Amino acid sequence: MIILGFDPGLATLGYGVIDTDGYSHRLLDYGVISTPAGMRTPIRLRSIYNDVSWLIDKVKPDAIAVEELFFNQNVTTAINVAQARGVLLAACSCKTDELYEYTPLQVKQAVVGYGRAEKKQIQTMVSSLLRLKEIPKPDDAADALAVAICHAHSGRLGGSFKIK
Amino acid sequence: MIILGFDPGLATLGYGVIDTDGYSHRLLDYGVISTPAGMRTPIRLRSIYNDVSWLIDKVKPDAIAVEELFFNQNVTTAINVAQARGVLLAACSCKTDELYEYTPLQVKQAVVGYGRAEKKQIQTMVSSLLRLKEIPKPDDAADALAVAICHAHSGRLGGSFKIK
Repeated sequence: MIILGFDPGLATLGYGVIDTDGYSHRLLDYGVISTPAGMRTPIRLRSIYNDVSWLIDKVKPDAIAVEELFFNQNVTTAINVAQARGVLLAACSCKTDELYEYTPLQVKQAVVGYGRAEKKQIQTMVSSLLRLKEIPKPDDAADALAVAICHAHSGRLGGSFKIK
Repeated sequence: MIILGFDPGLATLGYGVIDTDGYSHRLLDYGVISTPAGMRTPIRLRSIYNDVSWLIDKVKPDAIAVEELFFNQNVTTAINVAQARGVLLAACSCKTDELYEYTPLQVKQAVVGYGRAEKKQIQTMVSSLLRLKEIPKPDDAADALAVAICHAHSGRLGGSFKIK
């Protein structure tokens, strides 16, 4: 089955696509949806809505996995990321009910087996699991692939836990 | 001209519609878009996107005004409201470029003339400016009408400050 993973963001929203049977995974695609800092926020959000909708139509995933927010100290950044994540969720929800959310802790545990894993460890494990020669760039795309792998490892591939 | 004001929220998103020449205002409509707490977040966000899009098509506003977030202490509430506000902005941005954002301080100053005005003062002034016998209910709808009036008083009705 095809899983589309997302790492939410306003300036850079990472995505990663894998084909998996729950044990073995194959990389299909990865990249980022970017919006320029100079663009006004409502237009950036509209752009994200349209780009995410287009990507889902192109990828035709069996399931979508989205990372939950880890709230940092910068309130402005937090608002911007949360607004973008809301748009991402709405766009996904318009396309499929096979939509899953995972905390950063769950992603680390599912990919590395250790909830306090460093970013570098996760990226190395993503490369290893997908049999890549290099770590996918940028970080947002590698993170999105980790979210997709997290769903593949979740034991939920039957789809019995929709939008959890 | 017709102004549609929004007070963002996930559970309750207030809207208010006025017809104005910049000095005298007439109430056209107000209400709330609600999503039940038991519904999953992505579906609530999708519902908000669809309802806001439908409302804009119905109202056909010349301009839309949206209140900015005042960040409170509860992080979960803040994320939820920010996600809903992102969806609101994306939906509005898909319909018009005549989209304006105002801080709570700007709304208070524009409606009551005093940035530290209490909620009750704002609601009383909204009723007075719109020549209503009672204060519009619920509060989210009254707040949305205040945002619409704020834009009417902003001196931006010429539309030269799009999405500011």
